[in-house]
Amino acid sequence: MFSVKMSEELIRVFQLGDEDDRVHVIILTADPAAPAFCAGADMDEVVNGSALLGRKEDKEHEHRDPGGQVAMAIYNNRKITIAAVNGHASGTGATALQLPFDFRFIWAGAKVTFPFVRLSIVPESTSTYLLSRLIGESNAAYILFSGDGHKPDAPFLAGLYHKILPTRTEILPIAIEFAKNVAYNIGQVSYAYTKGLLHRSGASIEENHLLESRAIKIIGTSKDTVEGAQSFIKRRRPKYTDTLSENASSWYPWWKPLDVKKPKSKL
Amino acid sequence: MFSVKMSEELIRVFQLGDEDDRVHVIILTADPAAPAFCAGADMDEVVNGSALLGRKEDKEHEHRDPGGQVAMAIYNNRKITIAAVNGHASGTGATALQLPFDFRFIWAGAKVTFPFVRLSIVPESTSTYLLSRLIGESNAAYILFSGDGHKPDAPFLAGLYHKILPTRTEILPIAIEFAKNVAYNIGQVSYAYTKGLLHRSGASIEENHLLESRAIKIIGTSKDTVEGAQSFIKRRRPKYTDTLSENASSWYPWWKPLDVKKPKSKL
Amino acid sequence: MFSVKMSEELIRVFQLGDEDDRVHVIILTADPAAPAFCAGADMDEVVNGSALLGRKEDKEHEHRDPGGQVAMAIYNNRKITIAAVNGHASGTGATALQLPFDFRFIWAGAKVTFPFVRLSIVPESTSTYLLSRLIGESNAAYILFSGDGHKPDAPFLAGLYHKILPTRTEILPIAIEFAKNVAYNIGQVSYAYTKGLLHRSGASIEENHLLESRAIKIIGTSKDTVEGAQSFIKRRRPKYTDTLSENASSWYPWWKPLDVKKPKSKL
Repeated sequence: MFSVKMSEELIRVFQLGDEDDRVHVIILTADPAAPAFCAGADMDEVVNGSALLGRKEDKEHEHRDPGGQVAMAIYNNRKITIAAVNGHASGTGATALQLPFDFRFIWAGAKVTFPFVRLSIVPESTSTYLLSRLIGESNAAYILFSGDGHKPDAPFLAGLYHKILPTRTEILPIAIEFAKNVAYNIGQVSYAYTKGLLHRSGASIEENHLLESRAIKIIGTSKDTVEGAQSFIKRRRPKYTDTLSENASSWYPWWKPLDVKKPKSKL
Repeated sequence: MFSVKMSEELIRVFQLGDEDDRVHVIILTADPAAPAFCAGADMDEVVNGSALLGRKEDKEHEHRDPGGQVAMAIYNNRKITIAAVNGHASGTGATALQLPFDFRFIWAGAKVTFPFVRLSIVPESTSTYLLSRLIGESNAAYILFSGDGHKPDAPFLAGLYHKILPTRTEILPIAIEFAKNVAYNIGQVSYAYTKGLLHRSGASIEENHLLESRAIKIIGTSKDTVEGAQSFIKRRRPKYTDTLSENASSWYPWWKPLDVKKPKSKL
Repeated sequence: MFSVKMSEELIRVFQLGDEDDRVHVIILTADPAAPAFCAGADMDEVVNGSALLGRKEDKEHEHRDPGGQVAMAIYNNRKITIAAVNGHASGTGATALQLPFDFRFIWAGAKVTFPFVRLSIVPESTSTYLLSRLIGESNAAYILFSGDGHKPDAPFLAGLYHKILPTRTEILPIAIEFAKNVAYNIGQVSYAYTKGLLHRSGASIEENHLLESRAIKIIGTSKDTVEGAQSFIKRRRPKYTDTLSENASSWYPWWKPLDVKKPKSKL
């Protein structure tokens, strides 16, 4: 079950992983013998006024969706993130714990449900932002407006999952194997810049060209880039040593994230 | 044939359906024995100066595309909308009468054509906005730049149709069956909010988080949300009673739609 | 190999093709017997400080990625553009020389690689803008974050290629055949407007409606539109005569492209 406490713990884990140069990958998974990967919020709590839907003392504009806080901590994380979905997933289990990740691996037998409209609540965890961006608004609309559950290979989920695997127990080992293959072969700083460029692309092709150009100039003079080219020429594995804490440059992050705690304008 | 008169009637129908709490679903379909679902504009009229392309007395910036007016009336409609495309579709029949709907069901034998560049006109009915959002710019470009016709299962249309069915006569009954399953099980207000969040998502993940958080707080204290959780726990069908006219809150709609009749800036 | 010199030549070719009314299509291809369609930048140069990554005398914000300059020259080109990818493609060969085109045809045996993070550089040629728009952020993330190579029919590339063909030698003839079928049957001005509407769509459905309406009014009174309707009625091939240099109207282009040479704000 997803809870406010779990949201706080997840945010802390992803913050620690983001800040510590020694962390290259964060994989989220569940016990493959558990009834589900994550079944979402506790409906008994919802009946009695769950804090997930807002504390009673908060005014309308003061609530901050815990699932959305988790989603932002993952989406804005600068490291490799993988959701290893080894069981059924519903609600936040299908949104916060999947959509903001770089890679999504899932068990073929999982049922993935976005039940919000059927429970007369609204989709959370920034899923109304992420789902359209990830797979297009046509299928995002079907998923969110019908409230149906789907198998991972359903056409409505096309493009969402990067690997669909037959057994629950193999999801994590295969995710770890994949993670090693990526993590051992990429520059930490170049990965963070690449994520930033994809997630915070320019508003036009011209603006994006300026962002990429500056990123290329910054990264292109790094030790890691020379190491990358040399290892490519010599057909050996690269040994990247640049780190986010030492080599990210003061330009990064180039975007000004909206302060969700104290936004200047009341949305 | 699509005409200015048809556009006015469609807009009126969708406005009535939007305003009347008793209306839960609007399905658009055609006579399954007709030559087409909709063949688009009358080319004889175009030769003689069709009002669809602008009245002669209008200045360049004064024309308002009737297909676009229909598309906005459907896209901004707060109820469940379904296009039951039971025949061939071309021009506005493929754009205004399909793209702005929540769900698109189609006959497998239909030919879907976006012929604009081949007729030396430009795509209308906000299709240059909707098609990219719905299925991505790569296939939208192929469809709009080639002017070709496609069967619904063509790879260029991947993701556009939610059900592709073998016979013309079954489209409407299956759409009605689907509509009932959704309409009987969703909260009217939560559905409208969900549509708004998907169609008017924030410009960034942070902004979207604020929009969702406020929507969650508003909806989360409604009678329908308690009913949703209780019916879930008791595994019974929910009995939702909240209505848009009584329970939508003054915050909704949170976006300020551009006034297309008198836009402040001349685009 | 992609080089600064090649980028300058490509930009010149696409500028000439854009300006000359007699040019209807630009197809980019390679020698089908060459080792690759394009293998990207020369890694030996990167080790020694390639100008592709910025000249040493340039300040951080002064670099302009040559691949991005090529991508903009192609994306903003008003004519039909086709990438006929008849060999392996990596780096700029997969980005600048493919993504900004209207149509992408490829050899089924080609290996397409976006190796940036594995070389500890960042994706260039506006690929962090284009790839998400073209096929969605979920697969764009997989492609750019993993640095893996893919065959054209890999699920991660779904929607990117419009034709996947079995032999290297047939790509160009089939691209030419396709190009003729489109070019002989479209109005040059309506095509350019359609590209503009898709690439520079409004920020909302309402704004897009205003843009399309004005484009419809301008194009709808042209000789070519009457010819289009008449040829449709008489079921004959149209003879379009309007040209971009004579008939594009002063409204076009309606967007104000950011001046990437001297942007007002330092991004």
